[in-house]
Amino acid sequence: MEVKSKILIIGGTGYIGKFIVEASANAGHPTFAFVRETTVYDPAKAMLIKHFKSRGVDVVYGDLDDHESLVKGIKLVDVVISAVGHLQLQDQIKIIAAIKEAGNVKRFLPSEFGNDPDRNHAVEPGKSVFAIKSQIRRAIEAEGIPYTYISCNLFFSGYFLPSLGQLGVTAPPRDKILIRGDGDAKAIYTKEEDVGTYTIKVVDDPRTLNKTLYIRLPENIYSVNELVSLWEKKIGKPLEKIYVSEEQVLKHIKDAPYPENFVQSIGHSIYVMGDQSNYKIEPGFGVEALELYPEVKYTTVDQFLDQYV
Amino acid sequence: MEVKSKILIIGGTGYIGKFIVEASANAGHPTFAFVRETTVYDPAKAMLIKHFKSRGVDVVYGDLDDHESLVKGIKLVDVVISAVGHLQLQDQIKIIAAIKEAGNVKRFLPSEFGNDPDRNHAVEPGKSVFAIKSQIRRAIEAEGIPYTYISCNLFFSGYFLPSLGQLGVTAPPRDKILIRGDGDAKAIYTKEEDVGTYTIKVVDDPRTLNKTLYIRLPENIYSVNELVSLWEKKIGKPLEKIYVSEEQVLKHIKDAPYPENFVQSIGHSIYVMGDQSNYKIEPGFGVEALELYPEVKYTTVDQFLDQYV
Repeated sequence: MEVKSKILIIGGTGYIGKFIVEASANAGHPTFAFVRETTVYDPAKAMLIKHFKSRGVDVVYGDLDDHESLVKGIKLVDVVISAVGHLQLQDQIKIIAAIKEAGNVKRFLPSEFGNDPDRNHAVEPGKSVFAIKSQIRRAIEAEGIPYTYISCNLFFSGYFLPSLGQLGVTAPPRDKILIRGDGDAKAIYTKEEDVGTYTIKVVDDPRTLNKTLYIRLPENIYSVNELVSLWEKKIGKPLEKIYVSEEQVLKHIKDAPYPENFVQSIGHSIYVMGDQSNYKIEPGFGVEALELYPEVKYTTVDQFLDQYV
Repeated sequence: MEVKSKILIIGGTGYIGKFIVEASANAGHPTFAFVRETTVYDPAKAMLIKHFKSRGVDVVYGDLDDHESLVKGIKLVDVVISAVGHLQLQDQIKIIAAIKEAGNVKRFLPSEFGNDPDRNHAVEPGKSVFAIKSQIRRAIEAEGIPYTYISCNLFFSGYFLPSLGQLGVTAPPRDKILIRGDGDAKAIYTKEEDVGTYTIKVVDDPRTLNKTLYIRLPENIYSVNELVSLWEKKIGKPLEKIYVSEEQVLKHIKDAPYPENFVQSIGHSIYVMGDQSNYKIEPGFGVEALELYPEVKYTTVDQFLDQYV
């Protein structure tokens, strides 16, 4: 008989959290979403919460700053997944304290869902965000809490894929494109639904205990040059390519206001430094999604771009 | 016996469209969402479509550029609601052509969901967008298609309310705030769910035939100065207020890139020109949501801001 752990998702109405809640419900896990009471006044989140309830998800009201509410929520489950946004990463120290007090958690997944924070070459302000993620890892390890880290690289509908790496636009360009560096660094994309599916797969899997799950799906690994070629084929015309030197990229990061400087510093890490693909996954610290779960039918970048043609 | 018209929503996975689909299903209308087939590759939209299906909404696949698909979709229903985004407003001429050909539509609501386009003093680039909305109105009227226009002013979770009128931030400021003009022009806010509820109320209501429904809910009318006072009370400290002259606002609009210049020009129209409240609603052209539907319990700005405290 298969065991289906009970799962609490913190940040379940957020960008990636909602896909994790959905995947948990789809996989038949008793699923709990930890949300603030005032969330009901946010229309999109209120709609989402109604949807969760219709899927049988239990909504647990509380706040990261209300320790008792957190301990109470955690005691309901076996597994805690944090999907808080990057402004709340530091607050995860409060989740760790509550997990220690509750004493019943079999697995904790902190909010990462991006590049491996221990293996990056980002400049500020991205650098500090990765540093916080690394600090949270060290705190989990120091407390001896069983964990899995999810390194899923870039989302399909995030800042970069719909724009082929540009910023400030929400669809691929049709005339010209700015390319950071030489455009050859390989970046890795995963559809949000697939991130949800793989994330839920790890929670009861002993092979992922105290390891990082890397999602590097072979059909979704592209350099910007390769991505532009794919798009050119789809629209049947070439784009004018304007290559932007690393020096110019770094200058722009220094000059741009928040949050553009943050997003651009992530862009530099991925597209200039190659931080999603410039290291090998060793069995000592990591496992690969495709090797562990070959049965998952994932969506490809090629399919995703069809909606913009 | 109450008649529940069948409703087709075009743009139903968009920002406001999803709340209209939800409201239509909630009110018991047979509801159809017109979406492109490739939408399934967009993770957030794919999730939304699954949710619609679970609510009993019929998903009709088609494309504004595929006239036959549009006519076929429209023939399934009595009422067509367009909620397309501002880059597709012009394409609504194709919806009008399809409605004419189908010949069965009892009411058409074009995509407005903002300021009254016939009563505004926006500068470019906002000016052109209002001009397109006005052109679409004139085309509907010329074709003799029964209509209702929805003038719902600003959304709760749009660019302006969460930031108290700032741009580039997603929560109210805690130290200082930029205020356009003298901060006394009254702006009007409506929660997205309430926009959905009122929108669906009009479709079978003879009082709204060939009229504009104005949503001006008394508890949601605030000048920026009043909004800042409310927020200061909630956080228990005063903000430093920096007033920005109209001249400076106009210069910034000229210099800023798209889409910031667009959003800023809307900000100028609302917060400097007072275009949401500087005219009287005459029975000849308009009706008010609160007068027609006093039974709706709407959410207030005061409640909405509590989530950020």
